[in-house]
Amino acid sequence: MSQLKLMQPSVVKTAYNRIKKYINKTPLLQSETINMKLASKIYFKFEGLQKVGAFKARGAINTLLHLKEQNQLPERIVAYSSGNHAQAVAWAAQQLGIKATIIIPSLASPIKIAATKNYGAEVIITKERQQAEDLAHEKSKDSFLLPPYDHDDVIAGQGTAALEAWEEEGDFDAVFAPCGGGGLISGTYLATQLFSENAKVYATEPQIANDASQSYKTGTISRFTTSPMTIADGTRTLSISERTFQYIKMLHGFYEISEEEIIYWTQWLTHLLKINLEPTSALGMAGAFQWIREGNRNKRILIIVSGGNIDASTYMKIWEKNYLEDIPAL
Amino acid sequence: MSQLKLMQPSVVKTAYNRIKKYINKTPLLQSETINMKLASKIYFKFEGLQKVGAFKARGAINTLLHLKEQNQLPERIVAYSSGNHAQAVAWAAQQLGIKATIIIPSLASPIKIAATKNYGAEVIITKERQQAEDLAHEKSKDSFLLPPYDHDDVIAGQGTAALEAWEEEGDFDAVFAPCGGGGLISGTYLATQLFSENAKVYATEPQIANDASQSYKTGTISRFTTSPMTIADGTRTLSISERTFQYIKMLHGFYEISEEEIIYWTQWLTHLLKINLEPTSALGMAGAFQWIREGNRNKRILIIVSGGNIDASTYMKIWEKNYLEDIPAL
Repeated sequence: MSQLKLMQPSVVKTAYNRIKKYINKTPLLQSETINMKLASKIYFKFEGLQKVGAFKARGAINTLLHLKEQNQLPERIVAYSSGNHAQAVAWAAQQLGIKATIIIPSLASPIKIAATKNYGAEVIITKERQQAEDLAHEKSKDSFLLPPYDHDDVIAGQGTAALEAWEEEGDFDAVFAPCGGGGLISGTYLATQLFSENAKVYATEPQIANDASQSYKTGTISRFTTSPMTIADGTRTLSISERTFQYIKMLHGFYEISEEEIIYWTQWLTHLLKINLEPTSALGMAGAFQWIREGNRNKRILIIVSGGNIDASTYMKIWEKNYLEDIPAL
Repeated sequence: MSQLKLMQPSVVKTAYNRIKKYINKTPLLQSETINMKLASKIYFKFEGLQKVGAFKARGAINTLLHLKEQNQLPERIVAYSSGNHAQAVAWAAQQLGIKATIIIPSLASPIKIAATKNYGAEVIITKERQQAEDLAHEKSKDSFLLPPYDHDDVIAGQGTAALEAWEEEGDFDAVFAPCGGGGLISGTYLATQLFSENAKVYATEPQIANDASQSYKTGTISRFTTSPMTIADGTRTLSISERTFQYIKMLHGFYEISEEEIIYWTQWLTHLLKINLEPTSALGMAGAFQWIREGNRNKRILIIVSGGNIDASTYMKIWEKNYLEDIPAL
């Protein structure tokens, strides 16, 4: 666990130089329809085309490469996750030729378990999430535990998605990203500071998983006792950490998104951008839409579309009601 | 209606030079997982990112631009379609500043009707498909009727998708495309002749909509009396035409695909490529998979992924059963 200190924005640039030959430079997409209807210029950074199908690859490989630079690359790493972090750690370990043990609660989808094994990791299935976490901490005695967000190198790595977008198409007026444990939004905040003093950075979170938003408003970390069952499964974390809260405090605001809005924008972005995006990834657009409606017209907006890994059962929840009735409804 | 003659492959090159500044150069995608599991190098030409979300834009704009070159651009055009051709003709007319009337049977989805209107076309809804066709022919007395496939410039235009892929990543050993009325596969065949004498070109068609495959086998055009209700709605045409049959006769083979295989590959390509592809677009991969299983290993394969326009109800049909169980099942 790295020491708690506020990092300089330059760590994102350092991370990018470290990881760029391992990762994909993901595309920045636009929809003419959205730009026209919303009188905005919106850029979607599509991390579904990142290694393992999500931004999580960036933070995982950055952490390992930084350890390697310091001659501290461990022989074995361990992680627990039911989501994209599992695959990201397995993939990063494979890149550097080290062993990974990934502990996955049994609620995880078979396809994610298979993908994690496919990267050569040992996979241990536990009944519950808490058991997975406990086992990982036990194993951390002789393995390096790579946490999903509470680590400086993870945060700096996640920020490289926004950095790529700024290098390619800045100057943005506002940047939106989803917030689970806070690694992505913290890195996105830091990356933005490299390029602009004026750009606003907003976090977006499901209404029913609004622990980070509450923490931001009250100044004290708010914590769920059980995982909130939002369709945006990337944001089901119980709380942010002291580390990510340092950056979250400095954001320009939070947008809380209803489950219906998440599904609405998942459908529309799938249809208009022709991409397979997970519901968590629709949060940014939902937040941007509210911001535009507050009167922010003719702005250049960057939205981090975090990933594209979806379970079959989630597709059924996304599409059971049709929101693609009529374009003017946008 | 243009005269029935066999075109030279060079018409595709001419078409491309004519249309390239109007259309998108769509990406050629790969999946490391598919390439590894199938011991092949497969390139997916993703026409979902074409104007209007499907290859149909290519043929429509080529036809109008060719008329314009000959100083025969009409003031008004008409077309009938319940699918991507409707939007393609509306879009092409808008590009050239002429009026379009699109006649759409009421079974078409609201989103496709809205998109067609959005391109500035007049839309007339008829109760049945036959009425749409009849009305279009009636209107063709004082408007140019732009047919979905039975026109030389449409065929040449559709071939430009394969041409782009050949220019970017040839040399392919085999090329696969879906076959509805035959415009896309005919153009794809012609484009391939520009680059290789040896490359095989295969058509793929749903088993329950196998009129073209039957025509190929028997040497006589086979015709359905009612639209076969395959999930691959781009192939619900009743028959190919004499014009497209000229090229279809010269193909190296047909693969007939079950509805389950269509859904299976729609799911896997959505998941692995992170794209929103319509079921018709999964036909090519399903055919290639059979071809590989026949012993064609370590080949370079081009697959035309025809489009990305899907109705909400179709998503429910795609995802009601989960085929993403385990990667080795691939």
